[in-house]
Amino acid sequence: MNTQKKIAVFGGGSWATAIVKMLSENISTIGWYMRNEQAIEHIKENEHNPNYLQSAELNAEQLDLSSDINYTVENYDVLIFAIPSAFLTSELKKLTSSLDGKIIFSAIKGIVPETGLIIGEHFNREYNVPIENIGVITGPCHAEEVAMERLSYLTIASKNEDNAKFIEKSIQSWYIKTKISDDIIGTEYAAMLKNIYAVAAGIAHGLGYGDNFQAVLMSNAIREMKSFIKKVHKMKRNINNSAYLGDLLVTGYSLFSRNRQFGNMVGKGYTVKSAQMEMSMIAEGYYATKSAFKMKEENGANTPIIDTVYNILYANKNPKKEFQKLTDKLD
Amino acid sequence: MNTQKKIAVFGGGSWATAIVKMLSENISTIGWYMRNEQAIEHIKENEHNPNYLQSAELNAEQLDLSSDINYTVENYDVLIFAIPSAFLTSELKKLTSSLDGKIIFSAIKGIVPETGLIIGEHFNREYNVPIENIGVITGPCHAEEVAMERLSYLTIASKNEDNAKFIEKSIQSWYIKTKISDDIIGTEYAAMLKNIYAVAAGIAHGLGYGDNFQAVLMSNAIREMKSFIKKVHKMKRNINNSAYLGDLLVTGYSLFSRNRQFGNMVGKGYTVKSAQMEMSMIAEGYYATKSAFKMKEENGANTPIIDTVYNILYANKNPKKEFQKLTDKLD
Repeated sequence: MNTQKKIAVFGGGSWATAIVKMLSENISTIGWYMRNEQAIEHIKENEHNPNYLQSAELNAEQLDLSSDINYTVENYDVLIFAIPSAFLTSELKKLTSSLDGKIIFSAIKGIVPETGLIIGEHFNREYNVPIENIGVITGPCHAEEVAMERLSYLTIASKNEDNAKFIEKSIQSWYIKTKISDDIIGTEYAAMLKNIYAVAAGIAHGLGYGDNFQAVLMSNAIREMKSFIKKVHKMKRNINNSAYLGDLLVTGYSLFSRNRQFGNMVGKGYTVKSAQMEMSMIAEGYYATKSAFKMKEENGANTPIIDTVYNILYANKNPKKEFQKLTDKLD
Repeated sequence: MNTQKKIAVFGGGSWATAIVKMLSENISTIGWYMRNEQAIEHIKENEHNPNYLQSAELNAEQLDLSSDINYTVENYDVLIFAIPSAFLTSELKKLTSSLDGKIIFSAIKGIVPETGLIIGEHFNREYNVPIENIGVITGPCHAEEVAMERLSYLTIASKNEDNAKFIEKSIQSWYIKTKISDDIIGTEYAAMLKNIYAVAAGIAHGLGYGDNFQAVLMSNAIREMKSFIKKVHKMKRNINNSAYLGDLLVTGYSLFSRNRQFGNMVGKGYTVKSAQMEMSMIAEGYYATKSAFKMKEENGANTPIIDTVYNILYANKNPKKEFQKLTDKLD
């Protein structure tokens, strides 16, 4: 039964392209929605995405490309969303087709700015998608390395094991290993929070802190992440699994992470606005910081790193002074 | 009482020099033993170590330098050893003075090759130094960043809190923060094991694995470290504290780590011997691998990463094939 389900990817960025590439190792026809029609034409003719992850070779015959989100929703059963969270609301507003019976997987590592919800919760509350039809694809994974076919490990989280196994079979290959988890909430929060810690790592670097401090920051970040997620959704989880710690490390140590670059500019003295203008896109960690700060105010988690990033990004506090205060709270 | 105790450092390398620099922020006279007489003369005249950590500025007036290990042992109360583990036995053979009543702190991140013991155990078993007089200085800390006075966090472990506090007061400064722990065994094992994981990270890099895999490797390494240390010495510890996870990260992610460089050469196809010849010094992780493998055979810990490094370094197995097998054991 399950193997007859048809899979589509939503989004035209690097991560969406990487997921399409992974699926194309196993599936003959993949639905692919992106709003950019010129990009669609380019992919059909040249078999690579002109704007993102150009190096990933695609096979146009396997792709059912469309710039009509309703076409792709109607014709596919398992919908993998990899649209940056900042654009998700406006994309979903185009929907006239129903999501009834659809299985939704989020590969978005962020929070919906308008609702402050993680993606799974957003689909559940705003679109009545039942929890058992929602899943998460996460793990330490730069899209660039998928294009290069470098070994990567993904975690597929779902309350419905059949759905998780279906995605697992669809994306695993000689360079993609997978693991199944039932912690859909914890993995999504981890994917969101790690962007804040990557911003923090960037600010620290911009301020001149070194590798010794970075190691202490990451060590404190994983402990902070653990206590935050525990407040949101208490269950038995090993925070050192790849979906949590691994994902934090790959982003926090990456010089290519947009979140880290954004933080670095702020640390070097750019205003938040000018750092955002300088970058072509707003880093996910910017929105995540505001939502996470609000949540921790409500649930009482002790989050000195999130507080520091919030004070710098939203309360116009001086990065140098805020980090000096933070250093006394770390150990 | 404690504040009248006199502190000396043993060793002439980067880490010994960094510790002397830290102490010199607080202490007017520091004993410093190193075997190289030319280096001693150079330090007296030029106020920096000619061979290691040249950039660290020293004040010769504060230093009681000697190339006679017995002089330094006799005249000082708290002895901080920062001699590479491979040379510790031959240095200690020169001892004619007693270690009775001396407080020994190890800043050596390794294992004594001849006895297979961590440093604290070595002093305890071979020199009858009571456990309460033994301590460990550890933490994520590149000596180079101490020279640059970049903020670093050290953990001081001892069963005797007064001794730990004495060291803490002696080395903390505006750029050194400290934390006290009573886990002398766990912190020493962590400091030793992380070198093996840095070798593994180097081999993986040499074989062409990327950042996605590195994050998975480190995530598995900290879990493996936790279970290994638990087998050796069960007590309540948070493996994500800086002394364990932080120390793993600073070494595992450092391009300057000798262990990682050594592993990288092996991964690129150098034989173990030729990689060692190419480097001026044998990486601590080389000895640590042999000892850790022997220990896990005895205590039954599940250590796929250590086993893989052992097979490559000591059983002449093919790095590429061993890592392919390892990738199926990670998640």
